[in-house]
Amino acid sequence: MSTTNDAGGVEFRSDMTVELVKSSASDSDVIWAARVSTKGESSLADIDADPERARGLINYLMRDRHGTPFEHTSLTYFVSAPIFVFREFMRHRIASYNEESARYRELRPVFYLPAVDRNLIQQGKPGAYEFVPGTQAQHETAVADITRACEVAAQAYQHMLDEGIAREVARTVLPVGTYSSMYVTMNARALMNFLSLRTTRPGTHFPSYPQREIEMVAELMEELWADLMPITYAAFNEHGRVSP
Amino acid sequence: MSTTNDAGGVEFRSDMTVELVKSSASDSDVIWAARVSTKGESSLADIDADPERARGLINYLMRDRHGTPFEHTSLTYFVSAPIFVFREFMRHRIASYNEESARYRELRPVFYLPAVDRNLIQQGKPGAYEFVPGTQAQHETAVADITRACEVAAQAYQHMLDEGIAREVARTVLPVGTYSSMYVTMNARALMNFLSLRTTRPGTHFPSYPQREIEMVAELMEELWADLMPITYAAFNEHGRVSP
Amino acid sequence: MSTTNDAGGVEFRSDMTVELVKSSASDSDVIWAARVSTKGESSLADIDADPERARGLINYLMRDRHGTPFEHTSLTYFVSAPIFVFREFMRHRIASYNEESARYRELRPVFYLPAVDRNLIQQGKPGAYEFVPGTQAQHETAVADITRACEVAAQAYQHMLDEGIAREVARTVLPVGTYSSMYVTMNARALMNFLSLRTTRPGTHFPSYPQREIEMVAELMEELWADLMPITYAAFNEHGRVSP
Amino acid sequence: MSTTNDAGGVEFRSDMTVELVKSSASDSDVIWAARVSTKGESSLADIDADPERARGLINYLMRDRHGTPFEHTSLTYFVSAPIFVFREFMRHRIASYNEESARYRELRPVFYLPAVDRNLIQQGKPGAYEFVPGTQAQHETAVADITRACEVAAQAYQHMLDEGIAREVARTVLPVGTYSSMYVTMNARALMNFLSLRTTRPGTHFPSYPQREIEMVAELMEELWADLMPITYAAFNEHGRVSP
Repeated sequence: MSTTNDAGGVEFRSDMTVELVKSSASDSDVIWAARVSTKGESSLADIDADPERARGLINYLMRDRHGTPFEHTSLTYFVSAPIFVFREFMRHRIASYNEESARYRELRPVFYLPAVDRNLIQQGKPGAYEFVPGTQAQHETAVADITRACEVAAQAYQHMLDEGIAREVARTVLPVGTYSSMYVTMNARALMNFLSLRTTRPGTHFPSYPQREIEMVAELMEELWADLMPITYAAFNEHGRVSP
Repeated sequence: MSTTNDAGGVEFRSDMTVELVKSSASDSDVIWAARVSTKGESSLADIDADPERARGLINYLMRDRHGTPFEHTSLTYFVSAPIFVFREFMRHRIASYNEESARYRELRPVFYLPAVDRNLIQQGKPGAYEFVPGTQAQHETAVADITRACEVAAQAYQHMLDEGIAREVARTVLPVGTYSSMYVTMNARALMNFLSLRTTRPGTHFPSYPQREIEMVAELMEELWADLMPITYAAFNEHGRVSP
Repeated sequence: MSTTNDAGGVEFRSDMTVELVKSSASDSDVIWAARVSTKGESSLADIDADPERARGLINYLMRDRHGTPFEHTSLTYFVSAPIFVFREFMRHRIASYNEESARYRELRPVFYLPAVDRNLIQQGKPGAYEFVPGTQAQHETAVADITRACEVAAQAYQHMLDEGIAREVARTVLPVGTYSSMYVTMNARALMNFLSLRTTRPGTHFPSYPQREIEMVAELMEELWADLMPITYAAFNEHGRVSP
Repeated sequence: MSTTNDAGGVEFRSDMTVELVKSSASDSDVIWAARVSTKGESSLADIDADPERARGLINYLMRDRHGTPFEHTSLTYFVSAPIFVFREFMRHRIASYNEESARYRELRPVFYLPAVDRNLIQQGKPGAYEFVPGTQAQHETAVADITRACEVAAQAYQHMLDEGIAREVARTVLPVGTYSSMYVTMNARALMNFLSLRTTRPGTHFPSYPQREIEMVAELMEELWADLMPITYAAFNEHGRVSP
């Protein structure tokens, strides 16, 4: 955790929180869902029959992009991240979301500050960017500018609330770097699609260039999922991280 | 069970099979999902705080149609029913399906036959039909016609397979009353939408007129769900069985 | 237009922009889509047969909530509004979105400022709020606090860009009141669902309490749609503004 | 057309009907939708600026799988095909459907019969099938078995209707080869996904093995779409027919 508190109660963080709240997701869910095609009503019977054949079947489904058997699974995550991350996240429509509401509650003044190792400089042209580290001076500039703007925003927000102005109006000054919290529920197929678009890895079939902050969230989600469905996870990586 | 076997291995049934294969669905899932709006990161903490307030919150969500908190749940059913039921079922797009494949396996010759208490006669005009019992003679006609057509279809199917013709071609003769099997996974919100459209009940806010056979499936699904989320289920009925 | 420019190029607005970019949506689209149920391949033939029967059919579909015939339509809007409006908008998953990107371009410093007639005070308790006008002093407080916070944010943003810091990092200071632009494409059924949740009207069957700013956008969208599908629009209002 | 009428009014067909009822879909729709990312509110202005750059942009979007700009389009097709084709078709959830109803109307006795050039024999094992022509004798067997089963089904259906039994009960005997009609509306992104899964082509990145009958429908749909969006269509083919 890299949070710091300043005098006015304002807090800055550089990390993301991801917790797996609950799940119903295992490799065997993929097996019986797929085998109903060929075995009909008896597909549940032979789930534990043969681990090696299970591996073969999951590899085949992944390679040939038979995606539906991966859908009979459900993972619910709790995520705390800046609003600009949630803005990108919620473009994924095959998922269920409930988020903290700035209409119904007063938001806490917690803001995102890039860590020292966050690449600050963008090079290249549209469609072919890369990010490289900034100088020490650039990092200090970013910290100073962000800190000041967030503090002024927090003061303006608090002042309006103190004067009796509605939360939904006062929140208009809060920056997109303000932390929010949500629950998100996805099935494993939608999760693989999310991971394929929101992480960068060597060996990926269709390269993607996500913003680092959503990738940090995606990496934590991936780690928590990998243990639940190890055969599926291995097949996903082996076949170029393309969602089936 | 009302299955009967005839000489040629053909089987007739009048009932539907619905099993709850797995689920991750409870009233408390609705509570923490809803409370993140007002409590942010601490919404998980007070799940078990106060059952009476839980009831109040779920009633409020149902009445005012805040539907998303009901989505962080997952129910997987195994269903065996005639193809014409699956045709209607799969029009529900917020769900995941895997079904027995007539391309990948030989279908078993199991067909639907209306039970004696199935209303056979439709009265009224488009948009305002009702169904009433047929005479004994009408029931016998239906049984005779259906039995014969299914037996001829089963013979033609088997004969083509015996002659080496591909399953996907031979199946063209199979009637829509042929039984198939599938797994379907839905969240509780999608399930309530399904139930509101595929059951008829007194006191329903928006009346619906489903075909009896899909209603039989829906009733079995409803029964299996009611025990998992009793507060939600009571609120659903109390507020006119409208999906929130 | 209520925009004002200050010295530093910062601009404040209180209004929303909504333009209908293109559409393929008419009452007759509903008619042929619905009549395929009963007329099969000849449903296109009698579109223009009888306006009075068209009205009757659309009323029936709306009342009994047969929603699918309203889906064979498409409306594309261009919308400029504050980010906090887009955050609510994009929770509607049955729609297609493309928005201005703060990763790919430098955002213009245009911010939302509540107009004098915007109710500033929230009264009541969760689930039963109402909004009432603020005093002149409260309005001045809001304007002063928002103006200052947005100007500081704009300066911090510009300063970071001048120092070579990447757009996607610098944008973290921009408030959720910053204007953005997007195209959104929806069918008439999804649009009715959006309108039912994002407008408040007397006579609405299921009352909704949207934030005023998204309601401003919704009202403009509604106006542009009403002329395209007048029979559908009248039926929507007559039946309590419930999406079919 | 390869339809034939027999004595009892029963009709057999081997072809599919696909008509483009209406569309709002052009390459320029992709351009302005994509350019809003980098040009904001002025993206509509330069649509016609430079055809060569339009081609470059669409190629880039296709290659890097930026799919959303292709969604602001709408195509409505009228399709007549056997029920077993519609069963596969409606598994595609990002689409709108309205189909002829066997509950609301009496279906016409029109059935599918494989043409002489339909490959009848399946060779290989699960996951690696190929289809090859049957012998003349096998074709005759198929025609004889299908004809007879369909005629018996049509008689049983008609007899039950004549005896006053409800359409929704009588239809249980109708084979999945019975022709039905529907309207389907899709955007170009969903259409490309459909085509990638329901056609087989050399050079396809992820090979697919659709049943021939749905491929016949897909090929007709493709042909009607290709002319509307020639640049998009060329890019789709060039990049391995993967839906972006």
